[in-house]
Amino acid sequence: MKLQVTQENLNRALSNVARVASSRNTLPILANVLIKTVDNRVCVAATNLNIAITHYIGSKVADGGSITVPARLTQDFIASLPSGVINLKLDDTKLHITTDKYKSVINGTPADDYPVMPSIQDGKTWKVPAETLKKALQQVVVAASNDDTRPLLTAVYFHTKEGQLYVAATDSYRLAEKKVMPLKEEVSLLVPATSVQDLLRVINDNEPEISVTHDDQQVLFSVGDIELVTRLIEGSYPDYQKLIPKEFATSATLARADFANITKVSSLFARESAGSVTVEVDEKAQQVGIRSIASQLGENTATATAEASGSASITLNSRYILDGLNAINTDEVSIQFNGKLEPCILRPKTGDDYLHVIMPLKS
Amino acid sequence: MKLQVTQENLNRALSNVARVASSRNTLPILANVLIKTVDNRVCVAATNLNIAITHYIGSKVADGGSITVPARLTQDFIASLPSGVINLKLDDTKLHITTDKYKSVINGTPADDYPVMPSIQDGKTWKVPAETLKKALQQVVVAASNDDTRPLLTAVYFHTKEGQLYVAATDSYRLAEKKVMPLKEEVSLLVPATSVQDLLRVINDNEPEISVTHDDQQVLFSVGDIELVTRLIEGSYPDYQKLIPKEFATSATLARADFANITKVSSLFARESAGSVTVEVDEKAQQVGIRSIASQLGENTATATAEASGSASITLNSRYILDGLNAINTDEVSIQFNGKLEPCILRPKTGDDYLHVIMPLKS
Repeated sequence: MKLQVTQENLNRALSNVARVASSRNTLPILANVLIKTVDNRVCVAATNLNIAITHYIGSKVADGGSITVPARLTQDFIASLPSGVINLKLDDTKLHITTDKYKSVINGTPADDYPVMPSIQDGKTWKVPAETLKKALQQVVVAASNDDTRPLLTAVYFHTKEGQLYVAATDSYRLAEKKVMPLKEEVSLLVPATSVQDLLRVINDNEPEISVTHDDQQVLFSVGDIELVTRLIEGSYPDYQKLIPKEFATSATLARADFANITKVSSLFARESAGSVTVEVDEKAQQVGIRSIASQLGENTATATAEASGSASITLNSRYILDGLNAINTDEVSIQFNGKLEPCILRPKTGDDYLHVIMPLKS
Repeated sequence: MKLQVTQENLNRALSNVARVASSRNTLPILANVLIKTVDNRVCVAATNLNIAITHYIGSKVADGGSITVPARLTQDFIASLPSGVINLKLDDTKLHITTDKYKSVINGTPADDYPVMPSIQDGKTWKVPAETLKKALQQVVVAASNDDTRPLLTAVYFHTKEGQLYVAATDSYRLAEKKVMPLKEEVSLLVPATSVQDLLRVINDNEPEISVTHDDQQVLFSVGDIELVTRLIEGSYPDYQKLIPKEFATSATLARADFANITKVSSLFARESAGSVTVEVDEKAQQVGIRSIASQLGENTATATAEASGSASITLNSRYILDGLNAINTDEVSIQFNGKLEPCILRPKTGDDYLHVIMPLKS
């Protein structure tokens, strides 16, 4: 292998893929990244056996070849080099990396030992605008669980219903659902939330489109020069939609920034009670109040002006309120609920394409 | 106690003093900050018995009084409030904090139980431009030790010699010395480096002057509305000046940014060897090179153009080189040494007021 790449391109490719490589894996080679020529391009790739990310970059290839090198060292090293041309030359398993002022040798491991993700056979393919999918996933992924003992809940659920694509996630304490766009294909995919986080990181804002290809076991997202393949989670996702109430006795609309600020301030007094705060909708005063009590430290009440109907209160985890408000990207939001025991809904003031459901705490 | 302050002032005072309060202390009240009226001002103070910081802010005082309240909660709470007027009212030991939209009660502990630092009797006082002292301390504090088993080396040494004030610090592996300014008073103070860090944090760039008052046990720095008192470390500081060579067989001058960059890149390959890199001054090639070898991972050589005389090499800890280069704030720096075994000097290309000395490693 003998080739030239620019520092900018190699650095971008390594920063997209190297995160997947981990030295905590039982297979030592998984701490490496694969560098391989493919025609007149260089493919930089890494996998942890659950997910694989591949980034193709332009290159001047004199001799083809492949090698794997330690991901962290290589990424840090290339990131530290000045911009400009970098020469890569393989000598047995030693990768010589040289520029004008820097000469280094990184000891590699042959690429033959590097595991390959199985390719997708007979898959369905559809396309989605990159920005649309990115925003939708950002709005729901926060609600996914990271508890591996309930693998279904660690997924983001891509599914179609009545010709619309939805993405949803729940950890059983809160749930987020976003209507993405009309889609003809029938889809039902459980994509690991950790892979969704990786996908969000590699979607470049300049890319117009993401192509999604999947079979029963895997899904491939292609975004520009990057391919991300991840295993799917097996099983049937809970029928969450029946949990979402349709009518509400209490409802209030207020500025999202005000709601977030009174929640943040109150949460300081809720550290003893694991974040538990009481939201009070007051129709007469036309306000929303948040009350928290820390027996040792003191107590706090904060209020914000709102359009309110149906005075009532409900006890919620302040972190979930903040996560929900953060996921809703409109200036005004509504909170709606039926008494202390039923799920509480946060949603944009207008539009019906996003819902954030929070289960109440006992008060 | 009943008074009004602005959120801006109270927030600034708390962020300056609350850091000193710690809940890891054996005395629970030391996790609190003291809030006390003094005439028409409010004094916000905290101490850990080694250092005390007091910040005076303007206030509309209706009734005088004092209380101590949990530092972290109070700081986080006040920081979260919108800017504007805050009302404080003490009801027994409960501090009521109210604004237009926020009402909270923080449970306090009476101020009588709060320890007071002894005042300085018969001290000497002198003044120094705030910016001059700030820059000088920033340039030397990095070389102080944080190993409490050798308390002398955890100090920054303020001392006068031939009518000049110097500050210096060493952890025995590297040493930094800065000539600050002419000073008539004779000074010899061992100020804990941790207190110097706290002092650096509270020096506001708008303050023209720092007043320094000290006796044998303590030193008081007064900067605008802030007073910082710290205990001094007892003992005699090592006579470090005899360690500093005056003549050099090898010397090179180069751009500080280049030197820092080749050191950073080489240090990536020096992780196995605890940061050890070899600096090579090459008179013929008029360059400085840095070489590092990681037996497992590979090796690296990086070079930068320099004015060099006396080809030779020396092995140093790359972190100390970077700390030294970071402390020197000129565009060009010189490195000077006599063979592999004697101390190596980093200094600005011009001027004799700053020195950074690094002991070599065995190579």
